[in-house]
Amino acid sequence: MACTINVNLPESSYEIQIAPSTLDKLGEYMSKLELGRKVLIVSNPTVFELYGARVVNSLEANNYQVFTCILPDGESYKNLDSIKEIYDACIEHRLERSSTLVALGGGVIGDMTGFAAATYLRGINFIQAPTTLLAMVDSSIGGKTGVNHPKGKNLIGAFYQPKFVLIDPEVLQTLPEREFRAGMAEVIKYGVIWDAEFFAQMEASTHLDSIKTISPELLETIIKLSCQAKADVVGQDEREAGLRAILNYGHTIGHAVESLTGYTEVIHGEAVGIGMVAAGEMAAELGMWTKAETERQNHLIAKAGLLTHLPKINIDEIITAIQIDKKVRDGKVRFILPTQIGKVEITNEVPTDTIRSVLNNLQRM
Amino acid sequence: MACTINVNLPESSYEIQIAPSTLDKLGEYMSKLELGRKVLIVSNPTVFELYGARVVNSLEANNYQVFTCILPDGESYKNLDSIKEIYDACIEHRLERSSTLVALGGGVIGDMTGFAAATYLRGINFIQAPTTLLAMVDSSIGGKTGVNHPKGKNLIGAFYQPKFVLIDPEVLQTLPEREFRAGMAEVIKYGVIWDAEFFAQMEASTHLDSIKTISPELLETIIKLSCQAKADVVGQDEREAGLRAILNYGHTIGHAVESLTGYTEVIHGEAVGIGMVAAGEMAAELGMWTKAETERQNHLIAKAGLLTHLPKINIDEIITAIQIDKKVRDGKVRFILPTQIGKVEITNEVPTDTIRSVLNNLQRM
Ligand SMILES: NC(=O)c1ccc[n+]([C@@H]2O[C@H](COP(=O)([O-])OP(=O)(O)OC[C@H]3O[C@@H](n4cnc5c(N)ncnc54)[C@H](O)[C@@H]3O)[C@@H](O)[C@H]2O)c1
Ligand SMILES: NC(=O)c1ccc[n+]([C@@H]2O[C@H](COP(=O)([O-])OP(=O)(O)OC[C@H]3O[C@@H](n4cnc5c(N)ncnc54)[C@H](O)[C@@H]3O)[C@@H](O)[C@H]2O)c1
Ligand SMILES: [Zn+2]
Ligand SMILES: [Zn+2]
Repeated sequence: MACTINVNLPESSYEIQIAPSTLDKLGEYMSKLELGRKVLIVSNPTVFELYGARVVNSLEANNYQVFTCILPDGESYKNLDSIKEIYDACIEHRLERSSTLVALGGGVIGDMTGFAAATYLRGINFIQAPTTLLAMVDSSIGGKTGVNHPKGKNLIGAFYQPKFVLIDPEVLQTLPEREFRAGMAEVIKYGVIWDAEFFAQMEASTHLDSIKTISPELLETIIKLSCQAKADVVGQDEREAGLRAILNYGHTIGHAVESLTGYTEVIHGEAVGIGMVAAGEMAAELGMWTKAETERQNHLIAKAGLLTHLPKINIDEIITAIQIDKKVRDGKVRFILPTQIGKVEITNEVPTDTIRSVLNNLQRM
Repeated sequence: MACTINVNLPESSYEIQIAPSTLDKLGEYMSKLELGRKVLIVSNPTVFELYGARVVNSLEANNYQVFTCILPDGESYKNLDSIKEIYDACIEHRLERSSTLVALGGGVIGDMTGFAAATYLRGINFIQAPTTLLAMVDSSIGGKTGVNHPKGKNLIGAFYQPKFVLIDPEVLQTLPEREFRAGMAEVIKYGVIWDAEFFAQMEASTHLDSIKTISPELLETIIKLSCQAKADVVGQDEREAGLRAILNYGHTIGHAVESLTGYTEVIHGEAVGIGMVAAGEMAAELGMWTKAETERQNHLIAKAGLLTHLPKINIDEIITAIQIDKKVRDGKVRFILPTQIGKVEITNEVPTDTIRSVLNNLQRM
């Protein structure tokens, strides 16, 4: 079983390859792309220990000269200092314009590697080998790269597309269950914003909260349809001039929840789950979709083992936080709100009172 | 007298406006571009003291909310720390995606401002208001942005186009004469690589080495034809896939000379002048163009008050330095060599012996 999804962009189309054990074939795939001989693998100790050797072997077997840059594990290292370490490795090993960075890890490694690739020598090749569910279905596709600033997440970055995305679903076997569930939030997001049939498929599955209980077939379908949804959206709007913003569904409140809980108490996907619940409730409140649809969404989020209520956070702080988020335009907060399962709209007309009352309700649950 | 040059690019065309006193019209021009209200001017104390007030006034008169970020003056500050200062100012003043950075200064300020604009929120608007000759005719156009790494110049950067370039030739009156001459090296470059008629026009002028002796008309022509040459080349090859590399004429040896003299003994334009002499001599040596053409070029470079011989630098160190330059592909050094006034070719077939003997001769002169 294997499948290929094309990300079609005006200047830089590329393939996503999804197949079990495909990690051992990175070298082969790369050979088709006609890249330079030097490859720098960027990873962290957790992931590199588990999968590094397989990738190195595959590359060396295909005559690449392989170097590594192992950064500390964790979102708190997603900053300019780590980018400097990647630059230093690039310079130490004299990487050239035709050289390639391979991101082997989750979204943290992927975002940083992409940003370093975008900015070393004004852009060298880069390949995503995502190893978390979130990175497979979301962060590895679409070219958003970057790092955090002490004052805010992802404030520094670039749009820069990978040359290739290699997804081996088997590596999820070692992923902590919590990370798996967090990734499922983004998966469910695609169902709500883009693909009602996919949403229904997930509703039909008895389990959705653990890699142990999901069949390899369903897992592959989940990854495939999520990648397809992301590829569709990004293919229509690479630079987030309009449509692409729908991918931020659940993220307005989500980002605030993440940041106000210090990024560890509630991790990204969990926060997005809560954010989707909040967005759904706002939409119901404003009469944009039905209470029944909100319930269907919330039920699926709960089935994935994700929180559907708001942790103890001061609601005024959430309101303030969403004002300084990137999604503000001329001072107005933009929300993505669903109009039916599979469809969303972008609006900056949500009254602050509505935001406040929805958040209050979600906290009292 | 005023003229507009269009830089035509697939995704991001823009105008270069060249006119005396046009610095007072930045606000008016910006209003036509429909940008957000927040503007951050990035400059250095030298330039901001001379011209800052005029730019601020023009912007405020057009209802922009103006902030400033004044960085220390000098190439040695063209690094990631300065970029961080720009980020901090962006965040402090809550710049949004629709906000604009204005680079008011020479190439150092322009390159850094462009890179910060490229990477803050994954890209915000940016405008070039170049105040050195080099920045007017070269660095402000074409979207190469970036900073230095302790191990090498411009190793970190991005391709990112300005929304607009505003050139007021009058500001060159305050530019140190040495900087003016350095800029003339790039001007002469365009004659050699692209525009034989322009080259002849400069040959026809009695003086070429000082803003005091060049008529305002000739100065405007020089800026205009240089911008046009750069716009033509970049319009055909934005990302340096091929043709654009010809802009590196004189830069292979030039970069080595700059770096080996610590970037202050010989400044960029001066080094490029020497690099062009070296490239011309190599071309003559290899029979690619005539000895007479080399002489014409060298004569024009000398008339601009630029060095035509190589300062005391160990030639082996130059050879090593050009090997680690960005212009290396799979280990081979690429040179841009002239075939006649107005035309160059790209080659990686210059024997090291030829390089060495040409450099030796240039040092003995
Ligand atoms: N670029 C985008 O479009 C985009 C989209 C969404 C999220 N993101 C970013 O992605 C980041 C989150 O990514 P993430 O959720 O993948 O977190 P992560 O990269 O921190 O990975 C989570 C943890 O799992 C470990 N891990 C990864 N793969 C493993 C495996 N196969 N087996 C065992 N352990 C493994 C990691 O070492 C880490 O400790 C955030 O920084 C977020 O901003 C980016
Ligand atoms: N992006 C590109 O395509 C490109 C091309 C060529 C060079 N560059 C870069 O440009 C930089 C060099 O730029 P530069 O030569 O403009 O140097 P610069 O920016 O350092 O300016 C030279 C000096 O002149 C001063 N100055 C500037 N304008 C003045 C004015 N009107 N009156 C009085 N003083 C003034 C500056 O404060 C500075 O001290 C280098 O870093 C080089 O890498 C970039
Ligand atoms: Zn997300
Ligand atoms: Zn130059």
